[in-house]
Amino acid sequence: MARQLAIGVDVGGTKVLAAVVTSSGEVVDQVRSDTPAPTSPVADLEACVAAAVTSLTARWRVTGVGVAAAGLVDAARQHVVFAPHLAWRGEPVRARLETLLGQPVELDNDANCAALAEAAFGAAKDHSSALVITLGTGIGGAVVMGGQLWRGANGMAGEFGHMQVVPDGVPCECGGHGCWEQYSSGRALARLAGSQLRFGRQSLDAEEAGQHLPRAALAGDPQACHAYDETGRWLGRGMASLVSAFDPEVVVVGGGASEVGDLLLEPARRAMAAEVVGGRFRVLPPLVPAQLGNAAGAIGAARLILN
Amino acid sequence: MARQLAIGVDVGGTKVLAAVVTSSGEVVDQVRSDTPAPTSPVADLEACVAAAVTSLTARWRVTGVGVAAAGLVDAARQHVVFAPHLAWRGEPVRARLETLLGQPVELDNDANCAALAEAAFGAAKDHSSALVITLGTGIGGAVVMGGQLWRGANGMAGEFGHMQVVPDGVPCECGGHGCWEQYSSGRALARLAGSQLRFGRQSLDAEEAGQHLPRAALAGDPQACHAYDETGRWLGRGMASLVSAFDPEVVVVGGGASEVGDLLLEPARRAMAAEVVGGRFRVLPPLVPAQLGNAAGAIGAARLILN
Repeated sequence: MARQLAIGVDVGGTKVLAAVVTSSGEVVDQVRSDTPAPTSPVADLEACVAAAVTSLTARWRVTGVGVAAAGLVDAARQHVVFAPHLAWRGEPVRARLETLLGQPVELDNDANCAALAEAAFGAAKDHSSALVITLGTGIGGAVVMGGQLWRGANGMAGEFGHMQVVPDGVPCECGGHGCWEQYSSGRALARLAGSQLRFGRQSLDAEEAGQHLPRAALAGDPQACHAYDETGRWLGRGMASLVSAFDPEVVVVGGGASEVGDLLLEPARRAMAAEVVGGRFRVLPPLVPAQLGNAAGAIGAARLILN
Repeated sequence: MARQLAIGVDVGGTKVLAAVVTSSGEVVDQVRSDTPAPTSPVADLEACVAAAVTSLTARWRVTGVGVAAAGLVDAARQHVVFAPHLAWRGEPVRARLETLLGQPVELDNDANCAALAEAAFGAAKDHSSALVITLGTGIGGAVVMGGQLWRGANGMAGEFGHMQVVPDGVPCECGGHGCWEQYSSGRALARLAGSQLRFGRQSLDAEEAGQHLPRAALAGDPQACHAYDETGRWLGRGMASLVSAFDPEVVVVGGGASEVGDLLLEPARRAMAAEVVGGRFRVLPPLVPAQLGNAAGAIGAARLILN
């Protein structure tokens, strides 16, 4: 029997990663391109996805195409409802791409896809419940319960980044104040770095912080370490609230801002243990790094087709 | 075919309510007694439960006995691990009561049982997912997903009251600071009332506040109304975080502190709508009062047997 293959396409704010994935989660081929600007026509974005897919279908026979979109996907998983970093604005993406590609297409949010991949093949694979937290510029998340993704009534479960952790706190792009992601994400690191780290410059934006901070911290720079320590403490505090509410078996942390590993995760573990309710009556969920790296979204997207 | 009956026993901090319940959730008989003090011997508490049950089994033939305990129940639902207001301290309650009663016994946490009842017969019965929030002295809660109770890896899911909403905020009995229940529960009302309402007295404790405040608020007393308004705002804020994380179809609010209805629920609805992420892209879950009142715990406990 020929093995089943699907293409997973992770359509992120900066890059489009398309991968040919087996039913056991292995990536056998991949292509990568830059994401067209969110202000460019929708057709450009869809042509970019189509070019990636057709360059792979020229070499591989696949069952279908799963798409992980960095944005809000409706509960029926037909539309990208809203995506700040992509051109899609309420578009019926699934139907449009099926027509364009001549393949069955499935669609989901990128954090959900990454969680599907970690649940099936990665850090959560031996657990029946998990919270998967993706630390990028903001905080993405997903809920796995009974081995299944919990998508929610509107398909919007897992928006952990917008739990309010400080009343009337730092303003958030969502319109709220004091959202968790303002204290524990790439953006929080950049803010801390901007006020404390100079590297001979005036300040750092999020992208520069993302480039410089991990190296500085891993080299032992005290201010960079402080930025991760502070961000990690907030990470653990928010997790304590989520663990009190969901009581998952494991908490998985991925995304670019978590690449320094224990420099961030250790203060998070300490804060979570100190703040979760009933700590001495429960087995604390291990807080573990994601295992599938940048390919998680594409692997999970392919799983939408193969599972 | 004879209808199936079970006894549900709600073992709360102040009273034990035992009810004979049908498989459609009707209460056909009930008895009530005072809960022995938490400092009295465990045998007294178990004798109290047994007396209530045997007075009902003298009149009714039942399939078994479900017990809703006001405390932490382990994931296997055999032990009451910890219960501040009951004599049980790690006791194997299920096995002990089976021996004592000569009946099959099932055990669960009281907030879980109330949620089971509301999900099956009450305010959440037409919804496949719900958050059920019980406002008593503190905040109890439960998560219903796909029509099932989500109990969590340690059986401790739904401890919403201990989400941190104010960093370094009001100290909580759990050992933490700034827990949600310190701002939105009977205790919060009592604190607000103690500082703002006098009723010709020095101050009010939680029990007195529970007696006086609803009447004063329903009669239009401005300070009492302010206490509910403030508590309601905090209720809505915490709910916004929970709705961002879980995206449930409905939020059900029950418990003594919610008996004033819209005086509390309206400010909560406004705060939730204002603070939840992506409000304009989602159907907001209705925030509705629980329907089964004081009997919810016993009805849900019986359902542990009959379902």
